[in-house]
Amino acid sequence: MSNDIDYRSVTCQASPNIALIKYWGKRNEELILPDNDSLSITLDLNDMHSYTTVSTSSSMICDTFYFDDIQQTKLSERMKKVLQEVRRRAKDNKIKFVEIRSHNSFPASSGLASSASAYASLAIALTNLFQLDNPQSTAAYLARIGSGSAIRSIYGGFVRWSSENECLSSCIYPAEHWSELRIIILIFNSSKKPVSSTDAMQRTRETSTLFQARLSTINDKINKLIEAIKIKDFNTFAKITMMDSSQFHAVCMDTYPPVIYLNDQSKHLIDLVHVYNQMDGNQIIKVAYTFDAGPNPFCFIRQEHVDEFLSLLKYFYPTMNDDVHKHVSNVNEKFSSINLPIMSNVLERIVLTKIGTGPKIIS
Amino acid sequence: MSNDIDYRSVTCQASPNIALIKYWGKRNEELILPDNDSLSITLDLNDMHSYTTVSTSSSMICDTFYFDDIQQTKLSERMKKVLQEVRRRAKDNKIKFVEIRSHNSFPASSGLASSASAYASLAIALTNLFQLDNPQSTAAYLARIGSGSAIRSIYGGFVRWSSENECLSSCIYPAEHWSELRIIILIFNSSKKPVSSTDAMQRTRETSTLFQARLSTINDKINKLIEAIKIKDFNTFAKITMMDSSQFHAVCMDTYPPVIYLNDQSKHLIDLVHVYNQMDGNQIIKVAYTFDAGPNPFCFIRQEHVDEFLSLLKYFYPTMNDDVHKHVSNVNEKFSSINLPIMSNVLERIVLTKIGTGPKIIS
Repeated sequence: MSNDIDYRSVTCQASPNIALIKYWGKRNEELILPDNDSLSITLDLNDMHSYTTVSTSSSMICDTFYFDDIQQTKLSERMKKVLQEVRRRAKDNKIKFVEIRSHNSFPASSGLASSASAYASLAIALTNLFQLDNPQSTAAYLARIGSGSAIRSIYGGFVRWSSENECLSSCIYPAEHWSELRIIILIFNSSKKPVSSTDAMQRTRETSTLFQARLSTINDKINKLIEAIKIKDFNTFAKITMMDSSQFHAVCMDTYPPVIYLNDQSKHLIDLVHVYNQMDGNQIIKVAYTFDAGPNPFCFIRQEHVDEFLSLLKYFYPTMNDDVHKHVSNVNEKFSSINLPIMSNVLERIVLTKIGTGPKIIS
Repeated sequence: MSNDIDYRSVTCQASPNIALIKYWGKRNEELILPDNDSLSITLDLNDMHSYTTVSTSSSMICDTFYFDDIQQTKLSERMKKVLQEVRRRAKDNKIKFVEIRSHNSFPASSGLASSASAYASLAIALTNLFQLDNPQSTAAYLARIGSGSAIRSIYGGFVRWSSENECLSSCIYPAEHWSELRIIILIFNSSKKPVSSTDAMQRTRETSTLFQARLSTINDKINKLIEAIKIKDFNTFAKITMMDSSQFHAVCMDTYPPVIYLNDQSKHLIDLVHVYNQMDGNQIIKVAYTFDAGPNPFCFIRQEHVDEFLSLLKYFYPTMNDDVHKHVSNVNEKFSSINLPIMSNVLERIVLTKIGTGPKIIS
């Protein structure tokens, strides 16, 4: 294709994001307009990203999609929706077809949905390739109609996705603002297939009697969380984050039939974090957890406490796979006072990462 | 003691109850006044009961309590509170001391808190022994200050505990009203100690942002449930029961730190019940579940479906203990179409029972 005289190509990297205040519920299914504002942290590109190249030339005879260099028999409906919107917005009416090549630097078993980083990188690459107007808001719009929360991966740092007006996203604070923050992702081995979040959130909307009450708490929580981020008040940041995670799983439970994403390992980690935080008796929260639509915890922690927490994880989740706890040299015996069972061989992987600066256009 | 000239004794049997609409939250800790009305089914005395004998005579020199014929070193605070109230109400000022002898016909591993049947039988026995005024409401009051939901075991059949006025209980429909209803209790083997429900409900009150929204849904649910019981509409009965169970566990989850009573086995049973109910595609609900502050499900089912459901349980919860599935002759192969994992050796016991007619005074 690159021999074509009008061949053009753009590559973009984008990373997943983790919601501190969860998105759950669409008031418009087609345009993916959310019921509530959400707030997230975009992860570091160096640790995990989707890498998407889009190209076009007059000699292409159809749209094509390669995932991990394997041509897919057809484009998903969401991808078609994104391309349709690109064509509508493009001034150049000669745009015919597009080739999309995408892969992820992180395996599906990382516990992270790759759709956010995949659609964010696709949206930015397409916006650039066709030089669409208002590139940032256009990319945000395209990412959103591809996969709701992908809109939050359009920016780095702390990102808010608004549920009002045009329902776009914006960076609240850049990554550098709170550079000592770390994210530790625990991957528990679980073969359970999660309920599709699109179906589940629709069911929550239709059946949960607590859902509206959740919505009414969101803006106040977001304002308090933004203030905590502003002054780097980790205690408040941690508490709001954990409470919103629990509230999100509460409305999932209140759905009929109930949607239960947390498992026995999730529950153990929740108990462990609370006991650990209370251990020194000084009211200082060292670690916060949040859970998306799955059993794996995302933990937030300041750099200074990372070593101790990794040592705690090695104590309570010993495993025969030496690679899991490779960052820990020795186990701290002070954890033996914690009255919780030790769970052997349940932890498959630990990912240690930090806040990222956002997507990057390559060449 | 029985040689004493003024020795008197009363024995009462009372059974546990299972809440369809859960009690969760006290607006007065001392008097145990609940935040919301609750509705329950009292179980059959023949299958499980507490058996309590109270006696008094002028020669007794202190209050004594025997549990399973073993003298306890002291009475619990709640028991003292009950006795104090009995003395306050008794016309006979000569009442000095009381001996309490209590035991349960069912083991602690039945998944049922024995405090409801224990305090109900104690309250009725004491009310009779001392011939207190307004015996029914007095017994209800005494049971309640002993252990909140014990007040619902004062009556048989379907019982409502009001959160208004005097916060007493009443029988809505007697056991005979819906005699084909059966209750199947599954006991999963779990060594987890539950969080004390007294502490947990207080924490929910203080920290859950969804708790008030739950309270506002209760009366409407109770009215609909009573109507369903009236016309024996099992579908509506089942759906409201399951939804209130989930909503109760949702506000537990929304507590900080979260209170999680359900485990992986509970979740599996929930999924199994929903798949089973949808299997015939005829919108008829055959089984409903509810969970108290623990992982063991209480299932409601009409007599006509008991055999099939027991067979389903044998298929999905095979065990090496032949006693567990003793009621099932053969396994129905039609369940192989259900796409859920088979969980071996997780089920410890099945209790099959029905609605009971309420407490009984013996001799």
